[in-house]
Amino acid sequence: MNITIAIDCMGGDHGPVVTVPATLAFLRSHPDAEAILVGREEELTPLVEKAQAGLKSRLHIHNATQVVGMGEPPASVRAKKDSSMRVALHLVRNGQAQAAVSAGNTGALVMISRFALKTFPGIDRPAICFALPTIKGHTYALDLGGNVECTPKHLFQFGVMGTMLASALDHNDSPTVGLLNVGAEEIKGNDLTRQAAELFRASNLNYYGYIEGDDIFKGTTDIVVCDGFVGNVALKTSEGLAKMLATFMREEFGRGPLSMLMGLAAMPVLRRFKHRANPGRYNGAVLLGLSGGVVLKSHGSADAYAFEQALARAADAVANDLIRRIRDRMETMMGANGEIA
Amino acid sequence: MNITIAIDCMGGDHGPVVTVPATLAFLRSHPDAEAILVGREEELTPLVEKAQAGLKSRLHIHNATQVVGMGEPPASVRAKKDSSMRVALHLVRNGQAQAAVSAGNTGALVMISRFALKTFPGIDRPAICFALPTIKGHTYALDLGGNVECTPKHLFQFGVMGTMLASALDHNDSPTVGLLNVGAEEIKGNDLTRQAAELFRASNLNYYGYIEGDDIFKGTTDIVVCDGFVGNVALKTSEGLAKMLATFMREEFGRGPLSMLMGLAAMPVLRRFKHRANPGRYNGAVLLGLSGGVVLKSHGSADAYAFEQALARAADAVANDLIRRIRDRMETMMGANGEIA
Repeated sequence: MNITIAIDCMGGDHGPVVTVPATLAFLRSHPDAEAILVGREEELTPLVEKAQAGLKSRLHIHNATQVVGMGEPPASVRAKKDSSMRVALHLVRNGQAQAAVSAGNTGALVMISRFALKTFPGIDRPAICFALPTIKGHTYALDLGGNVECTPKHLFQFGVMGTMLASALDHNDSPTVGLLNVGAEEIKGNDLTRQAAELFRASNLNYYGYIEGDDIFKGTTDIVVCDGFVGNVALKTSEGLAKMLATFMREEFGRGPLSMLMGLAAMPVLRRFKHRANPGRYNGAVLLGLSGGVVLKSHGSADAYAFEQALARAADAVANDLIRRIRDRMETMMGANGEIA
Repeated sequence: MNITIAIDCMGGDHGPVVTVPATLAFLRSHPDAEAILVGREEELTPLVEKAQAGLKSRLHIHNATQVVGMGEPPASVRAKKDSSMRVALHLVRNGQAQAAVSAGNTGALVMISRFALKTFPGIDRPAICFALPTIKGHTYALDLGGNVECTPKHLFQFGVMGTMLASALDHNDSPTVGLLNVGAEEIKGNDLTRQAAELFRASNLNYYGYIEGDDIFKGTTDIVVCDGFVGNVALKTSEGLAKMLATFMREEFGRGPLSMLMGLAAMPVLRRFKHRANPGRYNGAVLLGLSGGVVLKSHGSADAYAFEQALARAADAVANDLIRRIRDRMETMMGANGEIA
């Protein structure tokens, strides 16, 4: 199967110096894939000049003159009709690519995707969903920052979308859904969680109940539902902690020659651990709920390795026929009245 | 200086089997301290029988017949006039102890403390505040679960309380206050953060601006302010991640004899790292804003080592004359109209 991915090369903290080398590495490991580099042609061309002929034939540059800034407000984003982000998403809309990947402004990506690629019937907004590693395997957490203010109905729709994703990707027909809260008891939480819990209980989803922050990495449920504010803070706090612990470990192994020797002795194991715990390995969140194509959000600060992982995830999603499988699953979940049951 | 601590021995997931041994260990390392063990006499007496005479003379048992359950609703908590939690707090109120420590139900502890020990003028509710480790040192984060629904004014008061704590404990007269958000740009966030930001900007606090989740452990600001829902999720998610990484590391060092040998070789460094990263070491959150005495909240699942840390923190706070110093600082921050400026 031929997979074409449109890449917003200008997005993210680093732009083309990260996104272009990441694309070349991705094409080397995915011989069936093609890539459309979207962005300022004069910046992109020099970066691909030295690529091997075998890669160049699968690499296309699509000029886009504008760039969406990381903190740019919606009105100003909407006015940029020729931004690399919008052009990449429209390549998916027009069928020239099956997936788009961007490390740019999250709010802008959610907004433009929603207009360009539409959501499934019954789904109001796309959510940012991430397969987080757990002690048992992984859990799909959403929303991780796409929707900062949510109603109970939005949280419920996140549960539906997460269920569709898990059943489409993991062959798990009835994945468990946990609602993130400050305690497991029924009286805990705020109005939002309590009202959302009622919707979940009345549905045919496999609702587990309230879970707490530490349940995420324990892998207590297959899906973790929360509003985008809480999810974004939890995700970024985790990244910060992982970095601090890595710093502590480097410092401890750097305390004098004996400690350094011990670090050398244990290096192969420490390397395996580092690889397993590297947040970059888990880069690439799906914009879940879009019916018109696959959109992956990379971390804004991703390096080339991390951005390559996001591209690989996009290719996986296309190869797995994610959108069609979610649509099929969606239809079986819809009641006769067109409402999600 | 003589320090007496009242301990809610029945609270937490484990009760007296954890709290009593922790108290004995605490008394051994704090020769000037005394402890009042509050709880069911018949359960506590056998646990202290074998203690050395030197400890026994500094150990008192205060009978309390009731126990507050971990998920018990407020109305039912209020009816338990002889709960170990309430009795411990009233020992502080009556001056028989300077501090109380509990691993019990957080909501109940906040509610009873507020009635028994009162908040400072201008402070509506006590907040749960924790000195989290950072790459640079530590940061005071609040609220971590005491107040699940907050107004902008509450968040602002948390900033005031955090400022008082940092200036009282760290000799830092103008600590920086960061408001936890999903992005650093002014347009990011929800109504709560945007309105709270206005209050901070108009105040004489050293307001840094919005910070993101990863800024907590980076140590970007001296104080991190958030509502109790977000703070509790961030804290518990961090705990879960730390445990998962510890599991990954054990698994990697357990993969066959060679890896185990490497683990042995690096053991001294790994032990130092483990000690530094051990969440139990950082146990014990202050109920900040109370004017009548020091109250420390231990993690519900704390083991004896972790509970002992919470006791040591309580003793530190008393030895540092925390309440008086906060009161002094509070008075200098009050405007002529009795409002916090």
